[in-house]
Amino acid sequence: MITLSHCQELDARDPLAHLRARFAQPSEDTIYLDGNSVGAMPADAPQRVQELMTRGWRDARRRGWSYFDWMEKPWLLGEALSHLLGARPQDVIFSDNTSVNLFKLLAYACKLQPQRPVIVTERYNFPTDVYIAEGLAHFLGGKLQLRLIDHPDELPSALGPDVGVVYLSHVDYRSSYRWPMRQTSALVHEHGALAFWDLSHAAGAIEVALEADGADFAVGCGYKYLCGGPGAPAWLYVKPEHQEKDWPVIAGWMGHQDVFAFAPTYEPLAGVRRHLNGSPSILANQAMSAAADLWKLIKPEDLGAKHRSLSELLVQLLQERCAVLGVKVTSPLDYSQRGGHLTFSHPGAGSVTEALLAHGVVSSFRKPDSIRFGLSPMALSHVDVWTAVDRLVHVMESGVWQEPRFAKVSV
Amino acid sequence: MITLSHCQELDARDPLAHLRARFAQPSEDTIYLDGNSVGAMPADAPQRVQELMTRGWRDARRRGWSYFDWMEKPWLLGEALSHLLGARPQDVIFSDNTSVNLFKLLAYACKLQPQRPVIVTERYNFPTDVYIAEGLAHFLGGKLQLRLIDHPDELPSALGPDVGVVYLSHVDYRSSYRWPMRQTSALVHEHGALAFWDLSHAAGAIEVALEADGADFAVGCGYKYLCGGPGAPAWLYVKPEHQEKDWPVIAGWMGHQDVFAFAPTYEPLAGVRRHLNGSPSILANQAMSAAADLWKLIKPEDLGAKHRSLSELLVQLLQERCAVLGVKVTSPLDYSQRGGHLTFSHPGAGSVTEALLAHGVVSSFRKPDSIRFGLSPMALSHVDVWTAVDRLVHVMESGVWQEPRFAKVSV
Repeated sequence: MITLSHCQELDARDPLAHLRARFAQPSEDTIYLDGNSVGAMPADAPQRVQELMTRGWRDARRRGWSYFDWMEKPWLLGEALSHLLGARPQDVIFSDNTSVNLFKLLAYACKLQPQRPVIVTERYNFPTDVYIAEGLAHFLGGKLQLRLIDHPDELPSALGPDVGVVYLSHVDYRSSYRWPMRQTSALVHEHGALAFWDLSHAAGAIEVALEADGADFAVGCGYKYLCGGPGAPAWLYVKPEHQEKDWPVIAGWMGHQDVFAFAPTYEPLAGVRRHLNGSPSILANQAMSAAADLWKLIKPEDLGAKHRSLSELLVQLLQERCAVLGVKVTSPLDYSQRGGHLTFSHPGAGSVTEALLAHGVVSSFRKPDSIRFGLSPMALSHVDVWTAVDRLVHVMESGVWQEPRFAKVSV
Repeated sequence: MITLSHCQELDARDPLAHLRARFAQPSEDTIYLDGNSVGAMPADAPQRVQELMTRGWRDARRRGWSYFDWMEKPWLLGEALSHLLGARPQDVIFSDNTSVNLFKLLAYACKLQPQRPVIVTERYNFPTDVYIAEGLAHFLGGKLQLRLIDHPDELPSALGPDVGVVYLSHVDYRSSYRWPMRQTSALVHEHGALAFWDLSHAAGAIEVALEADGADFAVGCGYKYLCGGPGAPAWLYVKPEHQEKDWPVIAGWMGHQDVFAFAPTYEPLAGVRRHLNGSPSILANQAMSAAADLWKLIKPEDLGAKHRSLSELLVQLLQERCAVLGVKVTSPLDYSQRGGHLTFSHPGAGSVTEALLAHGVVSSFRKPDSIRFGLSPMALSHVDVWTAVDRLVHVMESGVWQEPRFAKVSV
């Protein structure tokens, strides 16, 4: 049986343990297992934002563009993240939100091979991913089609000479199933298509290697495991060889070769930065800079090892202590097939999630019977996982979850 | 001759005078005439953002979506602004930045009349406006063409049965020339085209009436005269009759009929809200909410009258006191043809702008010889305008602007 002291020993050996103190202490004793939804706040984020408000907005005003790094932040943040994506520093930028970045890069990717008008994706991909592809196909009025697969096993038979882009979430937001990126990209390439990956439920949680694993295009969320703040800008990556094949689809002044020249015609910036368009959110980028300074402290292999350790610990604890209470781990049991969160089922999952909230554990419920624990390797300790499971055991053993006050089902 | 006491009298009669105290006091004695670039900070914006950081990000985390109005902010902010645009509350939302909104609505507008593949715009429209149109035409590979006019007088002859959209900035960012929106929209409609207006240099400064003046589509910046904060989200407007003619081009989950249903296929939200896509910037929207509470206090006719009063005062002061020093007002002298800022020329404009900065006046320089004074009717008083001109006179009369330290030309 796993003990608390075993968890304490794991924490003592954790090379990322020092990061936990860099996050703000919440006002109540709570374990936050929602890093897959809204990640933790770095302790110095409020002060950084306040400084921007007073020195930047109040005092500098338009001079902020010259005095501070407002213009450069989109690529400075990208550089800070790049090693955790397995990408070169110059190949990643932050801009817009994930949906807009999906649109920008999917439209760009589809145009590279117009004789291949099919996008292959999963029917149960994250909804916005599917909607963006549907919307693009709708806009182009029949020039593009979606081919939906219901299960990863169906991918090989969905490929063919008409497929231009395979558009997948690296990690399933429900089950946490993780596609093997290297093998999948290779299969996609064998069939002449491009591999497009959404890493929203992977980046900042697990070890990823975009360049080595053959990603042609990738995007990801800034506010989940990356801890950039609610609604933070999202990142995008384009494989070097594709970066200058065409104009960006949304061709704005921040992606112009010489933004303050006010030239009358568009000329794209070199490289991936051409996918910048209008003014970035200066406030949001400033908040995210606090997280970026933490990303820089992390070796990718340490991030991966820490997450694996948390995730394996959680599986063991759930199996040892909660199986008899009706809990079943529904995420893949092979770690290499799992992403940032862990999903398990319980017949009263909605009420259990509510009761857990009341007992100091923030997790999330998915209909009909799933609970997800998001595991942030930056902000969580092994003892946090132990405590969360301990509270889960209490909630289920005591039967408190069956009280009417927990019948309301949360989002 | 206009006197300081005359300006004090104008302030005493100003129904918007009370708003000036609602903005933060900068750390130095400075007159900010850059409301056309980055508007003033409402005094309570920092506290609102801090509260979001601690109660929202640090403590609530994913529960923020339920506890606060994160989801509703895009339309609550739009409702707060609508009366200053002459639009119904439900017809305006905030989302993305101006460039992305230009793209979204221009692509949507062009698709409404595919048999009319020409976009008419001005060669010297704000650069990002032109780039977005160029990028869209480039993406669609010859299915759309731009027709550029060099002067407003050329518009009638540019219209014809092939023109689908006339895409203009209501106010020229250089000269401050203001298109007569009602007559222009009517002319555009006579020729069967749709009228698309960018109000970035108008909204929050002058009185506008989108619905009465026949705008089919409109967008505008949130961080200039609206004082939403550096890089604040931008707004968009769609005339009611066009709102449900088609899907949005960027079809994301926040524009889905039931965002948290996680439905596998896209169904657009009713009305203009379908143009929401991914997660909004919660931090940026929170900062802008401080400005939105000020917008609500303003009657459109008071805003218009105050701006006119500031703008006419500035013209008179420049003519009376600065003409002999080489200053020439280059914006239209007829107020109805002017927008938010006033532009004047001086042979040493670059150095004068730098010297003005050193003497407590923030304005902006445009090559080769123009200086722009942005006139925010919310944040400025008549005495501010008087003081700014007084400092300009000092800079020019003393010859201080010719010192080598001011030779560097600012952005």
